[in-house]
Amino acid sequence: MKRRDFITRIGAVTLATGGALAAAPAVHGAGRRFRWKLVTTWPPNFPIFQEGVKHFARQVRRMSGGRLTIQVFAGGELIPPLQTFEAVSQGSVEMGHGAAYYWAGKIPAAQFFTAVPFGLNAQGMNAWFYSGGGLELWREVYAPHRLVPFPMGNTGVQMGGWFRKEIRSVADLQGLKMRIPGLGGKVIAKAGVNPVLLAGGEIYTALERGTIDATEWVGPYHDLRLGLYRAAKYYYYPGWHEPGPTLELIVNKEAWEKLPKDLRLLVENTAMATNLWMLSEFEARNLEALQTLKDKYRVQVRAFPAEVLQGLRRFTAQTLEEEAGKDALFRRVWEHYRAFQATHDAWSAISESAYAQARKT
Amino acid sequence: MKRRDFITRIGAVTLATGGALAAAPAVHGAGRRFRWKLVTTWPPNFPIFQEGVKHFARQVRRMSGGRLTIQVFAGGELIPPLQTFEAVSQGSVEMGHGAAYYWAGKIPAAQFFTAVPFGLNAQGMNAWFYSGGGLELWREVYAPHRLVPFPMGNTGVQMGGWFRKEIRSVADLQGLKMRIPGLGGKVIAKAGVNPVLLAGGEIYTALERGTIDATEWVGPYHDLRLGLYRAAKYYYYPGWHEPGPTLELIVNKEAWEKLPKDLRLLVENTAMATNLWMLSEFEARNLEALQTLKDKYRVQVRAFPAEVLQGLRRFTAQTLEEEAGKDALFRRVWEHYRAFQATHDAWSAISESAYAQARKT
Repeated sequence: MKRRDFITRIGAVTLATGGALAAAPAVHGAGRRFRWKLVTTWPPNFPIFQEGVKHFARQVRRMSGGRLTIQVFAGGELIPPLQTFEAVSQGSVEMGHGAAYYWAGKIPAAQFFTAVPFGLNAQGMNAWFYSGGGLELWREVYAPHRLVPFPMGNTGVQMGGWFRKEIRSVADLQGLKMRIPGLGGKVIAKAGVNPVLLAGGEIYTALERGTIDATEWVGPYHDLRLGLYRAAKYYYYPGWHEPGPTLELIVNKEAWEKLPKDLRLLVENTAMATNLWMLSEFEARNLEALQTLKDKYRVQVRAFPAEVLQGLRRFTAQTLEEEAGKDALFRRVWEHYRAFQATHDAWSAISESAYAQARKT
Repeated sequence: MKRRDFITRIGAVTLATGGALAAAPAVHGAGRRFRWKLVTTWPPNFPIFQEGVKHFARQVRRMSGGRLTIQVFAGGELIPPLQTFEAVSQGSVEMGHGAAYYWAGKIPAAQFFTAVPFGLNAQGMNAWFYSGGGLELWREVYAPHRLVPFPMGNTGVQMGGWFRKEIRSVADLQGLKMRIPGLGGKVIAKAGVNPVLLAGGEIYTALERGTIDATEWVGPYHDLRLGLYRAAKYYYYPGWHEPGPTLELIVNKEAWEKLPKDLRLLVENTAMATNLWMLSEFEARNLEALQTLKDKYRVQVRAFPAEVLQGLRRFTAQTLEEEAGKDALFRRVWEHYRAFQATHDAWSAISESAYAQARKT
């Protein structure tokens, strides 16, 4: 179906029943039905990510008695993965799922809504979104693009990446070609790394052939499936560049506004439940995969040396300042984000961090 | 309305429409309606806790088009707070909200579903429940009591408590009377503390009059409102005894089974969203309250000395072993819990903990 036809169809359905809900009870499981499409940036059967989106769609269909049916397409099944933003913005499809930092080319400030190097972890990101004004700000940033965003998924702290050689100092990073997107790529470039962008399906071959020397991906559970251990031996932690990446559900604004209030709440609550479900899956599944990588595939799991982390922290501060100098919206979101992070850090210092310390004392 | 009448009424409504859903579409916003009661263990207008439960009920009503209306009662409004378990188990009311460790007298193993000293934090608890088999185990433990439990709320790491004198060593704890419930109370008793149980409304007066020498409550946001800073000067962290206490929604099993599938999913997803919402509120609100306590009320915020934490950790291991010796179900749940905690710890060591360390390096 062409985009224009599709929009017309949605429009007609909505006009035919428009305003009826308030006057007379709509029929549950019959009548006013919405059949939506959702495109993702993920490969088909991508565990947790694509699985979570399908779960979300199934729940919404069941809870709405079939009034809102969401057909889910993996990246490339309907449109190329990185055209998700455009497709939902223009209304070719009603919903999309991906990560806000994929749209950094259009909206540099969007990166704050996924992950910031040395930024908030998952718990902090959720607190910022739901209780710290972060989601309102995100809505505001996406409004001119006719999109309504929702946090829907979080990987937790990622791994720092796979390297074909050992990293003992910042000097060892010099000249490496590494697959690393977003702000993390800009930061590590200051250490002399040449950051490269590759889709998930291209990473293994590039690493195996030596086209790249290093790559970050997600975490043990996903990295094991991609077979990266066959192409690189050193697996570094922690993921300083993506400490709690949030995934996003985006909804076309016009489609959203045509949805009755009860279905909007249904989408909102189910996205929130799915957000927590995905994080819980990562937290529960990563370790077993890491053990397999270590025990079965003899992967060397290493911590980045302190000197490397210190250097990357310094480069992060420089990068954020530079980006803020180029884009007023970036600066505005950064200021909001860092004020919240300062507060959250201060609270963590006597809650989560102090507790983690107490267990080791 | 008497309990028996109420159950009869629910039964009649359900029988009259029983099985109709599959055969013909039910009417959204009309027809087959459920009017339920939910009692909580919290004071009226108790921020985040009671507020979150009301939010949950409102969302469910709206999303179901009024098919499931849940009337919320604070502790004492319909029944005494600590009779919540009994009331829901017997079907006097359909739902309750509180914390599983309140029922330790009936089910010692229930304590694992709230918090364990030196146990899992909020992120770990959620991973255990949703992706580690913890929720299935909880359902099994509550099944003989005709209750279906759901995690619904988490305070994050609590504070260690208010003390009228400084705590420099385990010896300083000797002889203190402290309000501290659950396993935490049993553990600290081994340091010579006399643990006392008091409802929230009684704490301030007891502390102010010296009937007790110390108390734990929730965290800065709630403790400020209770005015505890007027009765004790030293505010200790971290909350070693409650590192990520989960709140529970309990549903009467028979009522639950009579609910159509779509409404069950609605309750389940909304409880999960509310779970995340409450944690986010705590994470976002605690710091400002802590600053007020420090700056305006001159409260001395102190970390427990290493020696005290080491002692409490040792006493925790002893206490868990003793309790497991007395109750087979306690041992079974403990074994499940600690296997998951070991896994989660190992993953945290290279994710959350390593990242927190990287930010400080």
